[in-house]
Amino acid sequence: MEAVPFTAVTIADRFWSPRLQTNRQVTLPTVYRHCQETGRIDAFRLNWKPGQPNPPHIFWDSDVAKWVEAASYSLATHPDPDLARQLDEVVDLIISAQQPDGYLNTHYTVVEPDKRWTNLRDCHELYCAGHLIEAAVAHFQATGQRKLLDALCRYADYIGQTFGPDKKRGYCGHEEIELALVKLYRVTGERRYLDLARYFVDERGRQPHYFDIEAAARGEDPTKFRFKNYAYLQAHVPVREQTRVVGHAVRAMYLYSAMADLDYPCDPLWNHLVTRQLYLTGGIGITNNGEAFGNDYDLGNETAYAETCAAIGLVFWSHRLLQRNCDRRYADVMERALYNGVLSGVALDGQKFFYENPLASTGHHHRKDWFGVACCPPNIARLFASLGNYIYSQNGRDFAVHLYVQSRVELPGLVLRQETDYPWDGHVTLHVEPAAETRFSIRLRIPGWCRRTTLRVNGQHAPLKLQRGYAVITRRWVAGDRIELDLAMPVERVYANPRVRQNCGRVALQRGPVVYCLEQTDNGPDLNALSLPATSKLTTRWQPKLLGGVVTIQGRAQREVGGKPLYSFAPSKRKPVALKAVPYYAWDNRSPGEMLVWIREG
Amino acid sequence: MEAVPFTAVTIADRFWSPRLQTNRQVTLPTVYRHCQETGRIDAFRLNWKPGQPNPPHIFWDSDVAKWVEAASYSLATHPDPDLARQLDEVVDLIISAQQPDGYLNTHYTVVEPDKRWTNLRDCHELYCAGHLIEAAVAHFQATGQRKLLDALCRYADYIGQTFGPDKKRGYCGHEEIELALVKLYRVTGERRYLDLARYFVDERGRQPHYFDIEAAARGEDPTKFRFKNYAYLQAHVPVREQTRVVGHAVRAMYLYSAMADLDYPCDPLWNHLVTRQLYLTGGIGITNNGEAFGNDYDLGNETAYAETCAAIGLVFWSHRLLQRNCDRRYADVMERALYNGVLSGVALDGQKFFYENPLASTGHHHRKDWFGVACCPPNIARLFASLGNYIYSQNGRDFAVHLYVQSRVELPGLVLRQETDYPWDGHVTLHVEPAAETRFSIRLRIPGWCRRTTLRVNGQHAPLKLQRGYAVITRRWVAGDRIELDLAMPVERVYANPRVRQNCGRVALQRGPVVYCLEQTDNGPDLNALSLPATSKLTTRWQPKLLGGVVTIQGRAQREVGGKPLYSFAPSKRKPVALKAVPYYAWDNRSPGEMLVWIREG
Repeated sequence: MEAVPFTAVTIADRFWSPRLQTNRQVTLPTVYRHCQETGRIDAFRLNWKPGQPNPPHIFWDSDVAKWVEAASYSLATHPDPDLARQLDEVVDLIISAQQPDGYLNTHYTVVEPDKRWTNLRDCHELYCAGHLIEAAVAHFQATGQRKLLDALCRYADYIGQTFGPDKKRGYCGHEEIELALVKLYRVTGERRYLDLARYFVDERGRQPHYFDIEAAARGEDPTKFRFKNYAYLQAHVPVREQTRVVGHAVRAMYLYSAMADLDYPCDPLWNHLVTRQLYLTGGIGITNNGEAFGNDYDLGNETAYAETCAAIGLVFWSHRLLQRNCDRRYADVMERALYNGVLSGVALDGQKFFYENPLASTGHHHRKDWFGVACCPPNIARLFASLGNYIYSQNGRDFAVHLYVQSRVELPGLVLRQETDYPWDGHVTLHVEPAAETRFSIRLRIPGWCRRTTLRVNGQHAPLKLQRGYAVITRRWVAGDRIELDLAMPVERVYANPRVRQNCGRVALQRGPVVYCLEQTDNGPDLNALSLPATSKLTTRWQPKLLGGVVTIQGRAQREVGGKPLYSFAPSKRKPVALKAVPYYAWDNRSPGEMLVWIREG
Repeated sequence: MEAVPFTAVTIADRFWSPRLQTNRQVTLPTVYRHCQETGRIDAFRLNWKPGQPNPPHIFWDSDVAKWVEAASYSLATHPDPDLARQLDEVVDLIISAQQPDGYLNTHYTVVEPDKRWTNLRDCHELYCAGHLIEAAVAHFQATGQRKLLDALCRYADYIGQTFGPDKKRGYCGHEEIELALVKLYRVTGERRYLDLARYFVDERGRQPHYFDIEAAARGEDPTKFRFKNYAYLQAHVPVREQTRVVGHAVRAMYLYSAMADLDYPCDPLWNHLVTRQLYLTGGIGITNNGEAFGNDYDLGNETAYAETCAAIGLVFWSHRLLQRNCDRRYADVMERALYNGVLSGVALDGQKFFYENPLASTGHHHRKDWFGVACCPPNIARLFASLGNYIYSQNGRDFAVHLYVQSRVELPGLVLRQETDYPWDGHVTLHVEPAAETRFSIRLRIPGWCRRTTLRVNGQHAPLKLQRGYAVITRRWVAGDRIELDLAMPVERVYANPRVRQNCGRVALQRGPVVYCLEQTDNGPDLNALSLPATSKLTTRWQPKLLGGVVTIQGRAQREVGGKPLYSFAPSKRKPVALKAVPYYAWDNRSPGEMLVWIREG
């Protein structure tokens, strides 16, 4: 299947629409301003001179590129002359930095001009190229202008003339260019970009190891690399031999996305991830030691790294796998990440960001305006600006609905309107309006979290015919046809595998795709002193004025109350208290304080 | 009160005697060998030359000093010609390194001879002097030889001529010399050493801040010190204004010990420590970030730093406070540390050591042969070699028993024999044998962990007259008098204050002073999947062949068993299993694996 592009999808709902508006009106300008103020944009003027402060950093280009990509997506659905002008200026500036041979990298042009391609392992050179390519593709698709695309084709050609089986060996320590080259191939039809992507993927981890050779050429001892055996970079063995998710989580997601694009085997990696290394929020990358995957089941809550970019990367990978195979397990994970570990990455106001997304906090973790390593804010901006990409797919005339978001799709010969108040309510109505009566299939994802589903077509009860978690309705559709899907959405208690030592004896609350948490501001301090009896009834309430409008969960809990002694031979006394949970994504938008996803049960 | 010196106490029991023998026969030679092999002893030859490898490190002298101290204590109770000769060689070598002006420090004599007294904050110069003074005092007391004592008096005099109210300001970043100077005063009677100790304690934290001035004099920016505001060094405010334990835990304990010696107020610090910052094992220093105290109640189990030296320091401090005030709360903590967080620091074989003593382990924490920073092994050696110091006190004719250890005390006019199988059994018999019938009081500590005590004098039930947790028996004692104390020693379930979020819903097992833990080798992996019902009966068994002979605890528990999914909507199934707990101090002496002190209850 192929994703229905976001340009064909108009999102108009109560949940995403305000967020996407904030993304356009606040996050995009915020990212621009920080890129401007920190010198990232002006770096493309190439006027930095040795001895001056603030030299262009090796990864700066990527931040600007992601802003260009996000701004392009935004313009594609929401024309904005001011933004268009600003984007055009930045695009021209980027193009102006291209060297006569096609090379385009601010750091290596002005700071270390003699070091080009000497440290692919650490220096993000091809990674930046990848993000620029993605930006160029987005810019071309949004504006129809070829100037940035042509520049990046020249750069990609230069890269392709440099690297390859019969040329210089090499690949990037931080994957990204692989998936970008696939995009470039798709938009240009030029097979050489696909071949180059495949070369970079295949070369990875091969012996003799390129990063050994490269380090030796720099006069360094390769064994002194701080991440042993290159697993940190997913380059410990050739990618087709990799069956366990390892190393830096964002890099892994970008590599696996390219592998999905290239139709390489991904299921062993996927299964390892979802059965051993995935937070309930869709966060991945357990440890801040290398922003990386960790020991199986070692899902620390307070210590969770769960970088926003890694959850975004998981959305990218899941989405690609979903196109290969319309199987709900991919869409379930994509949705889990999107509504939880991605969405938590940005404040409701759209201008503060989490880099790390722990599942418990003692009150000292807060969103920040910006980061020295600023990958996350523009990554959120580009994902949200293209959110429409993730909702529907098409295969010939057949159609699939992966996410429930009130929206309208316009395709040649077909209009489809989805009405729903998801994620707060599980009732979904699809209005199918083919231009002419046509026989085709519509696949509706029945989410893994849903235990009771009813389906009606034109008011008539329809049996659920499930294929890999999708209800398939095949018929001759006529304008005015109506599908009604009811996804029962009670509060669910979620339990972790007992091998996750951090969550033994604990329960998390989830309703629909939304994972909940306790905040100190609602429940008082010492959240771990609360326990939720297994028998407590949990009720929900729609609170339109809270946190931009959320369904909250209420229940009766017990709170341990202690005296002064640190230790005693008597268990603490317990008193009944009210418990209130709010969506995890919305935490840390009120008074700073503790937060807890996994609540003690009993 | 004054501690009865270990030289008057002969320990002959089943618990400590084998350990003290191992300390003499294995640990002492092991520490010597490592000091020799790493160059620490030969450093005193002063033949290191610039450009050579392995320059004497700033803290090496202290390791050798602690070995000298330990070896001296050992010789005082267990003559050993080979050890005496070895000690004499080392002592002569140390003395040979003394400079004509009295200065004695290997690093600053050969490595940075022009930097003497320029970085008291970081470089352990006075700390090493302190340990050498403690060694000299011990050596003099053990052997009657004055040579090392005289050398260290010369060094202390040189230090006293250098530092003081009307001389150079200064004090050590790592406290130690203060308590050492008090010892030197006590053995020499020279008031100037006490005054110098008091100067170092009083000067600490005063403004203008000495460490600011010193850093500026080195051309450094004082604000760039990695530990802000000097709390790390307990020098953020003058010591009399300090009411919360802060900073590096070992430094804190050595400072507070000197404060206790000097009769400075300690109770606010003590109360803060025992109500907020104390592990159940007597471990202190929550965080590896600075080996330091942390946030109140933030008693992470896996992440506990709980350095062996800090628990030893807590024994030192508690013991000094106990002499000031015969109050069980000091002895209880001293005992808690001794039987748990100190004893865990050395393997049963006496030759592997823990630096950190966490209360939970995923299986990757093991004792090591030696450390680059090797403070802990010789610290254990000197404490164990003088363990007899900690059992009894005397005040005139009155007598106090703090610890129950089968032993014999010989004092002028009084012999006291303590018979007990403590800590495995709470029955204690004291045979009192005064040379002549004498009226005096005997105080017997009724441990805080004990909830049922019976006391008999000469077979007759005696009422418990408690003063600050000590049963006081005042009478005319005659030879042959016999006190029998029965301390009920059931398995106790211990609960933490609910503000300790890590232990909410958890229980620890303690019997007498011994804290227990689960090990994987007895209970299988995934120890957090076990829960101990509140109603489970716990039984004990003496296992003479296990871990050098231990009482183990048995009970029925539940184990959560999970399928493959990482998350599910159904709680895990539970199956009944046997649970077996062993003393915490003895963990990691069998197959490596998980360990857990705080068990889920329910």
